[in-house]
Amino acid sequence: MTDETLRAAVLQANLDTVRYGLVLSTFGNASGIDRETGRILIKPSGVPYDSLTPEDMVPCDLDGRALDNRLRPSSDLATHAVLYREFPGIGAVIHTHSTYATIMAQARRPIPALGTTHADYFYGTIPVTRDLTPDEISEDYVLNTGKVIVETFAGIDPLSIPAVLVAGHGPFVWGRTPDEAVHNAVILEEVARTAWHVMALNPEPQPISQALLDRHYLRKHGAQATYGQGN
Amino acid sequence: MTDETLRAAVLQANLDTVRYGLVLSTFGNASGIDRETGRILIKPSGVPYDSLTPEDMVPCDLDGRALDNRLRPSSDLATHAVLYREFPGIGAVIHTHSTYATIMAQARRPIPALGTTHADYFYGTIPVTRDLTPDEISEDYVLNTGKVIVETFAGIDPLSIPAVLVAGHGPFVWGRTPDEAVHNAVILEEVARTAWHVMALNPEPQPISQALLDRHYLRKHGAQATYGQGN
Amino acid sequence: MTDETLRAAVLQANLDTVRYGLVLSTFGNASGIDRETGRILIKPSGVPYDSLTPEDMVPCDLDGRALDNRLRPSSDLATHAVLYREFPGIGAVIHTHSTYATIMAQARRPIPALGTTHADYFYGTIPVTRDLTPDEISEDYVLNTGKVIVETFAGIDPLSIPAVLVAGHGPFVWGRTPDEAVHNAVILEEVARTAWHVMALNPEPQPISQALLDRHYLRKHGAQATYGQGN
Amino acid sequence: MTDETLRAAVLQANLDTVRYGLVLSTFGNASGIDRETGRILIKPSGVPYDSLTPEDMVPCDLDGRALDNRLRPSSDLATHAVLYREFPGIGAVIHTHSTYATIMAQARRPIPALGTTHADYFYGTIPVTRDLTPDEISEDYVLNTGKVIVETFAGIDPLSIPAVLVAGHGPFVWGRTPDEAVHNAVILEEVARTAWHVMALNPEPQPISQALLDRHYLRKHGAQATYGQGN
Repeated sequence: MTDETLRAAVLQANLDTVRYGLVLSTFGNASGIDRETGRILIKPSGVPYDSLTPEDMVPCDLDGRALDNRLRPSSDLATHAVLYREFPGIGAVIHTHSTYATIMAQARRPIPALGTTHADYFYGTIPVTRDLTPDEISEDYVLNTGKVIVETFAGIDPLSIPAVLVAGHGPFVWGRTPDEAVHNAVILEEVARTAWHVMALNPEPQPISQALLDRHYLRKHGAQATYGQGN
Repeated sequence: MTDETLRAAVLQANLDTVRYGLVLSTFGNASGIDRETGRILIKPSGVPYDSLTPEDMVPCDLDGRALDNRLRPSSDLATHAVLYREFPGIGAVIHTHSTYATIMAQARRPIPALGTTHADYFYGTIPVTRDLTPDEISEDYVLNTGKVIVETFAGIDPLSIPAVLVAGHGPFVWGRTPDEAVHNAVILEEVARTAWHVMALNPEPQPISQALLDRHYLRKHGAQATYGQGN
Repeated sequence: MTDETLRAAVLQANLDTVRYGLVLSTFGNASGIDRETGRILIKPSGVPYDSLTPEDMVPCDLDGRALDNRLRPSSDLATHAVLYREFPGIGAVIHTHSTYATIMAQARRPIPALGTTHADYFYGTIPVTRDLTPDEISEDYVLNTGKVIVETFAGIDPLSIPAVLVAGHGPFVWGRTPDEAVHNAVILEEVARTAWHVMALNPEPQPISQALLDRHYLRKHGAQATYGQGN
Repeated sequence: MTDETLRAAVLQANLDTVRYGLVLSTFGNASGIDRETGRILIKPSGVPYDSLTPEDMVPCDLDGRALDNRLRPSSDLATHAVLYREFPGIGAVIHTHSTYATIMAQARRPIPALGTTHADYFYGTIPVTRDLTPDEISEDYVLNTGKVIVETFAGIDPLSIPAVLVAGHGPFVWGRTPDEAVHNAVILEEVARTAWHVMALNPEPQPISQALLDRHYLRKHGAQATYGQGN
C-alpha cells in the first residue's frame, strides 16, 4: 500500500465514521499503519471533517511521535500507537462515540454474543476495560488508555474480537484495514444497540451456544468460509 | 405468474427490505416460488443490492439445489426450501434482521397480540423457536433452521401467523406473494417495536381478548371482510 | 365554514397525520363536522393517501350513515359519529396509531401530567378506556368503541383533555377544528413519548402540582391567556 | 459586539435550536446580552421560526422589561433576566424542550458525570431544581423559575456546569456567547440521552472518577488545555 493509498483510506475511514453516524461533532478519530515502514497516519486534532484532505493525515512513528510539524495529530494518538505496537495483526484503529457502544461502556456492560450478527463479526464477548487508576489518569492518560485495552485482551486474539469498550468512555475498534475497521465499528454499534434492548427486557440474557457462535464466526472467518460468490 | 413477473417481484421484495430499513448491509434475503413448476427464485449470495437485476435471482428446486451455475444462491436457501415444502400455502419467504424483531428473537420473547394492528395481520402469538442443538448446528444448520421453524408451527396455520422469531437469530416472514411477505415483514417490525416498549414498562403485558383478536383478524382475512372499497 | 373549506381542511388533516409520522400505512383517519348542518366529512376507507382529493371526503350524517354512494367511508365512522353526538364542542376527530400513544394504550397506562408541555394542552391525566366486553366487540364494535370513550369522559370536559387511549388499540384525538385536532395529535405523541421514558426509569412518576398544571393550561386556554402576540 | 452582531447571533441561536432538533413547535427561546450596556436581546413570543429576522429580536433591560413595543418578548424573559443578573459570567441563555433533557427533568433525575463527553463540557452533576411552591407558581412564576435555578447553583460556578433541569419542565442552558450556549444545549441532550439509557439498565450507575472528570474537563477548559491546533 503506497503512502498515497493509505492517506486516502485513512481519510475515508474518518469521513465514514461521520457518514455512518458514529461520532458527535469532532469526537472521533481513525488511523492506519504501513506495517513495512511502521509509519502511522492519523486524523489531525480538532480540524473540521468537511475540510480534511488526504494530506492532512498526520504521519507518526510507532512511539506516537509526529514526524512533521504541519498539523498536530489527534490527541488520542498514544492510544492508537500502543495498540499498533501490541496487536501486530491490526492495520487500522478507530475511536468513536457511537451511541449504544458508548452507553454500554458507561454502564460497564460487556456485550455477550446474543445473536448471529454478533457471531458473524465478534468471536465471543466484547469486553469492557477496568477503570484507570487516578495515577494512570493524571500521568500519560492517553498511553494508559491503550495499555488497559491491551491488558483487557490478555489471552484474547484481538482480530477475533476487534473492539473494546473503555469504561466510562467509549469504544475503540480495529481491523486489518481502515475499511474493515469502519465496518467493524458499524457492526459494533448495531450489536450494542441490540444488546442494550435485550438487556433492558432481560438483565441476564442468554448468549447463543458455542456451536452457533462457531458456525457463524467460522463461516465468515475460518478456512471453510462459505459466504459470498468467491472461492 | 410468468417467470419474468416472479423474477421482478422477488427482486422488488429484496429491494423493499432495504427500502423499509429491515436489513443491515446485505444481511437479508427474499425468495418466491412458482407453485405450478415448483421452481424457487432467490436472491444471490453477497451481491450488493444496488446492482441486483431480475436476471440475478437464482432459480432453485424444492430440494434447495440451484438450477444453474451463474450465481450462488443465498446461503439461507435451505431454510426457504423447507418452508416451501412444508407450508404449501405460502408463495414467498423473507429473512430480515429488522431491529425489534431481532431483539425479541435474541430475548427469546414470543410476541403476544397486544394490540389491534397485531390482530389485523397475525392471528395470535408470534412464536420463538427453540434453540437448535449443537448437532443440528454443526450438520445441515440452514436446513435445520427451517425444520425447527416447521416444528414450532405444529398445530398453527402458517398463513394465519406469517412470521417466526428464530431464537438468537432473527425473523423469517412469509406470505402468499413476495409483496405480501414484504408487507408482513414491515408490520412484524412495527408490532415487535410496540411490544418491546410495552414489555419494558410491563413485563407481563395483558393480551387483547379473543373477541378483539377475532374481530380485527377476521375483518381483514375472514369471509366477511369489510375493509377497503371492494365488494 | 363552507363545504369546500371543510373538505380541504379534512383532507389536510388526513395528510398531516402522515406528514407528522402519526400513522402506519393507511391505518388512520380524520374527519370534521359542519355543526350548522350536522354533516360529517370523513376519509374514505382504504384509499391511498397520495391519491386523495377534497372531493373524496365522504359526507355522512350524525347517525354515521354515508350520504352518497361514491366511496365507502372509513370503517371507523361510527366511532367518530358518536363522539360528535356526545361531545358537542368538538369539530374534528382523528384516529392515529402514533407510536408511543399506541404503546401506552396497549400497556393500559393513563398519561398523567408529568410536565409543562402536557399542561399546555391537556388539563390533567389522559385516560385509558376500559376493555370492551366480548358482546360489545361482536356487535356494533365500532359504535361501542365510541361509547366506551364517552363513558371514560364522564365528568371530564372533552375539550380540556382532547385525547383518549383506547385500551389495546390506540389513540383518538379531537379539537374544535381539523387543524387543532392534528396539533393535539402531534402533542399527544410527544407527551406519550416523554411519559414512556419517564415511566421506564420510574414506574410511579410524580405528576406536576395542580398549581403548575393550572398555570400552564390556563395561560394558553383561560380567559387571561398571555402567550403570543395577540391582544 | 455591536448590536447588529448580537442580533444576528441571537437569531442564529434560536434557529439552531430548531436545526438541531432541540425544540418542538415554537416551544423554545434563546437570548444574548451586551454586558457593556446591560441590554438583553430575546426571541419574540409566538412568532414562527421561519419568518424571524434579526430585527425581530426584542431589546430588554436587566429587570426584564421590553425597551420598545414592536413585538412582545418571549414569555420566559423574566427567567432569562434573573440568570443574567445573578450569573455575571454568562452572555447567552437558551430554553429548549430537547427530548432526553426534558425526560430527565420530568423524572427529576440529576445527570451525574457517567462518561468523558459529559466531563468535556460539564464539571460534575447537572442538577435538577426543587419544585416550585404553589405560591411561587401563582405569583411571578417565570421570575421564580429563574430564582429557583439560582438557588440550585448555590456554591456551583454556573460556567463550569452550564445547564440545569427545571423539575417537571425542561432544561435551561447558557454560555459565554449564543453560539457556545447552543453547543452546550446540543451536548446536554446527548449527555442526557446517554445517561437515560445507562440508568435504564442500571438505576444506580457509577460516575467516572474525580481524576477522569478533572482530566477531561481541564483539558478543554483549564489553563493547560491541549485540544485542537491552537496554543
